[in-house]
Amino acid sequence: MDYIQSFSETLELIKKERPLVHHITNYVTVNDCANIVLALGGSPVMADDPKEVEEMVSQASSLVLNVGTLNQRTIESFILAGKKANSLGVPVVLDPVGVGATNLRRKTVEAILREVKLSVLRGNMSEIISIYGSGGTTRGVDSMDDSMKGGKEIGLELARRLKCIVAITGKTDIVSDGERIFLLENGHEILSKVTGTGCMTTSLIALCSGTKCSPLHGAIMGTMIMGISGEKAYEAIGHEKHFGSFRAKLFDAIGSFTLEDIRERGKVYEV
Amino acid sequence: MDYIQSFSETLELIKKERPLVHHITNYVTVNDCANIVLALGGSPVMADDPKEVEEMVSQASSLVLNVGTLNQRTIESFILAGKKANSLGVPVVLDPVGVGATNLRRKTVEAILREVKLSVLRGNMSEIISIYGSGGTTRGVDSMDDSMKGGKEIGLELARRLKCIVAITGKTDIVSDGERIFLLENGHEILSKVTGTGCMTTSLIALCSGTKCSPLHGAIMGTMIMGISGEKAYEAIGHEKHFGSFRAKLFDAIGSFTLEDIRERGKVYEV
Amino acid sequence: MDYIQSFSETLELIKKERPLVHHITNYVTVNDCANIVLALGGSPVMADDPKEVEEMVSQASSLVLNVGTLNQRTIESFILAGKKANSLGVPVVLDPVGVGATNLRRKTVEAILREVKLSVLRGNMSEIISIYGSGGTTRGVDSMDDSMKGGKEIGLELARRLKCIVAITGKTDIVSDGERIFLLENGHEILSKVTGTGCMTTSLIALCSGTKCSPLHGAIMGTMIMGISGEKAYEAIGHEKHFGSFRAKLFDAIGSFTLEDIRERGKVYEV
Repeated sequence: MDYIQSFSETLELIKKERPLVHHITNYVTVNDCANIVLALGGSPVMADDPKEVEEMVSQASSLVLNVGTLNQRTIESFILAGKKANSLGVPVVLDPVGVGATNLRRKTVEAILREVKLSVLRGNMSEIISIYGSGGTTRGVDSMDDSMKGGKEIGLELARRLKCIVAITGKTDIVSDGERIFLLENGHEILSKVTGTGCMTTSLIALCSGTKCSPLHGAIMGTMIMGISGEKAYEAIGHEKHFGSFRAKLFDAIGSFTLEDIRERGKVYEV
Repeated sequence: MDYIQSFSETLELIKKERPLVHHITNYVTVNDCANIVLALGGSPVMADDPKEVEEMVSQASSLVLNVGTLNQRTIESFILAGKKANSLGVPVVLDPVGVGATNLRRKTVEAILREVKLSVLRGNMSEIISIYGSGGTTRGVDSMDDSMKGGKEIGLELARRLKCIVAITGKTDIVSDGERIFLLENGHEILSKVTGTGCMTTSLIALCSGTKCSPLHGAIMGTMIMGISGEKAYEAIGHEKHFGSFRAKLFDAIGSFTLEDIRERGKVYEV
Repeated sequence: MDYIQSFSETLELIKKERPLVHHITNYVTVNDCANIVLALGGSPVMADDPKEVEEMVSQASSLVLNVGTLNQRTIESFILAGKKANSLGVPVVLDPVGVGATNLRRKTVEAILREVKLSVLRGNMSEIISIYGSGGTTRGVDSMDDSMKGGKEIGLELARRLKCIVAITGKTDIVSDGERIFLLENGHEILSKVTGTGCMTTSLIALCSGTKCSPLHGAIMGTMIMGISGEKAYEAIGHEKHFGSFRAKLFDAIGSFTLEDIRERGKVYEV
């Protein structure tokens, strides 16, 4: 995949245009999401009241819908902002945090998928499986393990069904547009021990997708930037349990991220 | 108190079972609470909508009710989740943040105490005195100082009255089950200069109590882990006003916490 | 401007009295605001339910109204708490985050300005221009650039119109009481790459104004403390893109802030 040219342009556009990424997101990791967008050169805004989300998203380059701490207010806003974004051609990235855990989350994510056209869906394996399984396929979820093989198939089929990019992040990240499947091998296990790294990846995907970058490249690039920055932050600390120091270094790595990092470290291949 | 064996098993169970700690908590320190639970090996989840809290807590190993930024939505959820937790035998830990400050907080905490059986109540001295004083005792609060003597009596009597563990954290922490009183001497004053260390202690208590650990041991262990980690983080910085660096090191200390830390530094004795 | 004596007294009063700063604020930067108030020696409290804000502000030394993630609950509370603060002589500091972005924000800020007497209004240039332009002046906003000259005039005129201190923070900060104009030249560009530095400046202004300090001195002092601490934190890192490390050092600098920092580095002059 010859992505270097595309990623180079996207990084430059981010610095130049400072895309505004409108978030309707949870209150747990929201500060991290704002800081990660700022660190890479974008401009974050968080607004979740139904009376302002349509107006806010009208000024945005992309929209993040993150259901982490959803409530009646944000559920209404997800749909309003998502539909408005669709009407304006603003890319929408959905993070279905914990979708399998409660009926409210399932119904909310189903409503979003029904009412809003996504550019990218990003989740971990269990979240993606939960969405995959509830979509009317006759093949039960129980019969699938979350191995690479199962994951690749699920990503591909779900991308086809939802007509959007599906990014499944984990030890190996899987990204599919419904035609092709890409695997990303960057990252470090310590990323899973800090809250918000998934949410932050979603925000980075939205930031990249807020330029002229295709959603496929946006998903790969956002995921790769988080993975590589996690590696660099871990190397700067050299201790797999020093989570506090790691977090500070993670933002250092994002802030000083350049195309060289992608050239030297990027591990993505099509399967 | 021969707690080493119990604490050793609890630490191992946390790493092995990754207990899910459901939080209905404030938006000020929520990120710290999530990270502290992750750092010690648990799995945090935050969900506060009345339409999902019962389902969420059904999957949890313990429940934190923290009234720090309570509102009509969370007040309803405190009761729903607490009652559901009780019916399932899921331990409930209450953090009555600022309970004495407003009537809304007092009434909310009273409603929780009336409707929900707690495993542990953790607060600072003024919060615990506020609850103690509003409970129908004829002895006025004004007549008591917050000295160790007063604090020990209050902890003991309140634990007896509420039929739960009471943990009063401060320079010296006081933990009582209504029969016995334990004093903990770990910690460092810098912990009081960083927001959320009380809330995080509550989350650690819930995490420990989410294993087969008794609530008494859970309360002592969670409190001790925060105290010892505060000492270690302070020593790593060596400056009592470097609050930002301290916070990072606090999560490093929690992440790399082992039984050795308890063996070498733990200061708890029964009085 | 002979402010050293006044600032010295204010710093001492903060340490001695630990002013309680009541915040009704957004969920993005709220943790930073709490920590910055604590770091300088104050006592933060966050409470936003309409049923408790009047009681809470009655115990406070100052009140922050920050509209960053406003919603129906907080909009009601802004007015209730603001009016109560006015009736008690508690200084109110408004941070009109993103006021120009949506009609909901404009209407909310207008309602606050109509119903509540402010001590200090702090925003960035575009926020202040947005308020200035919507206030019935016949001079269009479009005709003004955000140069120093325009900024100084706007600050002066808006302060006169609103009868409060106006602080416009940016590369050069502008503070006016409607009679005089002060420029502050402290700070570092990296402060604009981290979320919440504006909100934190507002909280510091409220903290300083919560002592016997005049709102004018409170606004200058809070702004200066953030600027100088930003410089010190940047110097401690020496890398303009290491945002994570910078944030930790920022809280270190605030925590160890002394009058000497003002004496050695403070750059404020009247124009």
